[in-house]
Amino acid sequence: MTEPAATMTPHQREADDPHSLVVRFGADNPLHMDAGVDLAPFTVAYQTYGTLNAAKSNAILICHALTGDQHLANQNPVTGKPGWWEIMVGPGKPIDTDCYFIICSNVIGGCMGTTGPASTNPVTGKPYGLELPVVTIRDMVRAQAMLVDHLGIDQLFCVLGGSMGGMQVLQWAALYPQRVFCAMPIATAARHSSQNIAFHEVGRQAVMADPMWAGGRYFEQGTDPSKGLAVARMAAHITYLSDEALHRKFGRKLQNREAPTFSFDADFQIESYLRHQGSSFVERFDANSYLYLTRAMDYFDLASDYGGKLANAFKGTKTRFCVVSFTSDWLFPTSESRAIVHALNAGGASVSFVEVETDKGHDAFLLDEPDLFAATRGFLGSAARARGIA
Amino acid sequence: MTEPAATMTPHQREADDPHSLVVRFGADNPLHMDAGVDLAPFTVAYQTYGTLNAAKSNAILICHALTGDQHLANQNPVTGKPGWWEIMVGPGKPIDTDCYFIICSNVIGGCMGTTGPASTNPVTGKPYGLELPVVTIRDMVRAQAMLVDHLGIDQLFCVLGGSMGGMQVLQWAALYPQRVFCAMPIATAARHSSQNIAFHEVGRQAVMADPMWAGGRYFEQGTDPSKGLAVARMAAHITYLSDEALHRKFGRKLQNREAPTFSFDADFQIESYLRHQGSSFVERFDANSYLYLTRAMDYFDLASDYGGKLANAFKGTKTRFCVVSFTSDWLFPTSESRAIVHALNAGGASVSFVEVETDKGHDAFLLDEPDLFAATRGFLGSAARARGIA
Repeated sequence: MTEPAATMTPHQREADDPHSLVVRFGADNPLHMDAGVDLAPFTVAYQTYGTLNAAKSNAILICHALTGDQHLANQNPVTGKPGWWEIMVGPGKPIDTDCYFIICSNVIGGCMGTTGPASTNPVTGKPYGLELPVVTIRDMVRAQAMLVDHLGIDQLFCVLGGSMGGMQVLQWAALYPQRVFCAMPIATAARHSSQNIAFHEVGRQAVMADPMWAGGRYFEQGTDPSKGLAVARMAAHITYLSDEALHRKFGRKLQNREAPTFSFDADFQIESYLRHQGSSFVERFDANSYLYLTRAMDYFDLASDYGGKLANAFKGTKTRFCVVSFTSDWLFPTSESRAIVHALNAGGASVSFVEVETDKGHDAFLLDEPDLFAATRGFLGSAARARGIA
Repeated sequence: MTEPAATMTPHQREADDPHSLVVRFGADNPLHMDAGVDLAPFTVAYQTYGTLNAAKSNAILICHALTGDQHLANQNPVTGKPGWWEIMVGPGKPIDTDCYFIICSNVIGGCMGTTGPASTNPVTGKPYGLELPVVTIRDMVRAQAMLVDHLGIDQLFCVLGGSMGGMQVLQWAALYPQRVFCAMPIATAARHSSQNIAFHEVGRQAVMADPMWAGGRYFEQGTDPSKGLAVARMAAHITYLSDEALHRKFGRKLQNREAPTFSFDADFQIESYLRHQGSSFVERFDANSYLYLTRAMDYFDLASDYGGKLANAFKGTKTRFCVVSFTSDWLFPTSESRAIVHALNAGGASVSFVEVETDKGHDAFLLDEPDLFAATRGFLGSAARARGIA
């Protein structure tokens, strides 16, 4: 057994007993993982919004990013905050729950109810920790496909997501082209760059350098690798913003003081902001999940599965694509999206490309970006007419 | 007393007993620090190369960067490796020791013999640790000026350096314009940006999150915050390179293996490289020094000392400037150098500006960059003729 519930934090509890819809796949229905292991049993936790129409033709799967979860348009059960994409998804919103049936599942390797390293390993009765096989983007997509099967949906109207979510979108379109009517990869890449692997490795080393991480066995040890995880989050968070946005928001402004203190206190607002990002993150996220999900992104290289030629991943596809990037995103720069567009063109796909002008960096896909909203509404509307969705 | 010498690592020993020339300033000659403290006694450790001419008109002060030291053109006594700028400084090199007398001193707050947090506090007999007042770029420059006085040099022919060294160059030119005939700030800025403060704060938090850091008292505790410092170095190292250079050098190449291991090993060459950067750094650098010197850079904002107008820092200066930036440097981008050039122009200074085309990122100033070498040789040669140096 894991620790008694009384000592568990809300985010620990969520791993085994989520505030979500849940589908449990048994021994007869294992997840075939790229690591060469069949995972069974396993659980997928998910949320839905809107109503599936009679033809089952209006389902949109939204794939979440590295530290996202399935709670995109409802109050988050751990943080108590609004869903992470309420600005985008809801009645009358760009992804309109009055028209579409939205599915969002926590990814394999996550920590919000889908099987991940914080989940109890039924064989040992203890959290998996590092005993869970390393997961890949394709494993995430396979698990989502099993969920979509479970929901009785043959073809998704759209698969859509940003960042790591965008990787899943591309993987869906490559793996199950006949099941994806249209696809919208946002602020993403078809392979993780060397610089991005480097930033992820820093984050993992920060977690693993924390003695409280205890080789990944911190739940049983009663320790908490929150310091290491906070450092990882701080480093990553810088990459989600842009130099311009940091300058505009914080510049060199001091935090509640008139002059520097000549100390290592958080004199600057940017320091205080980053520390807050670190400390709030560790309250909602599992350190081992952070290792697994960053690793999944590092391993992502779609072309490598198709003889090194990305166009082959999309050859003859009937899926309609809309690829979106942001001018100030240096983590997944526009050049990565252009490479996807070129491959789609070479593969003969129908593709439109939107580069949104913004100074908000990678995080722009989560923020109030009217051009993103307009592109999403327009692309979905046009595809819905083509598919005959009322 | 500090620990017995037998248990000290070479880099610990270097703090009190450096393999360098040394000048010790006594109680009658304190360092007036920006923190409002007079530091006395204190030590400046330095190296010289070449010969000071009879007129004492050929002295070049080279200011080192964050993790540099005074050993720019001789074997480093801690690492056994060549000096960090042997490619630039030596007989017949762009900074020609046959023509010029080169001075390079370890900065205040450093760990190679100049007073810093690893130095023994004469009052307590123990290492300063965080008892040393926080240092500033101006404190570094004041200490250098005292060294230059000690050497009997009235006016330096040139003050030159990259990155944090470039900040010192700008501070020299502003504080002692009559003592600087010409100045060459390379890959630097007149104020540290919000993004750069953010990266520094991540590094400091990584160090301070390591329980072995022990509130900065690791020497007395017999602990070693090398894990935290290695993470700090890894994060920082990414910022010294460019996305393009990482792609060119490492891409997604695997390290001594045919396929990913589905583990958290260093599968990718970039991971292995970064880990090596972290582990080799901690053998030569003091964790507290890292805190102090990053803080000094964060605090640097030259305009703020001149009514918020950078041009005022250089008003009426007779110093000749050559400002250098690198196209792929995103830590100190060309826009920062342009701001310096505009301020120098507004201040009526003589200034030339060289933007070197390279994909090597910020670290380009330390590497084989023919355009940098040519600019340095040309600028110094022209200034030497103007000053009548043979």
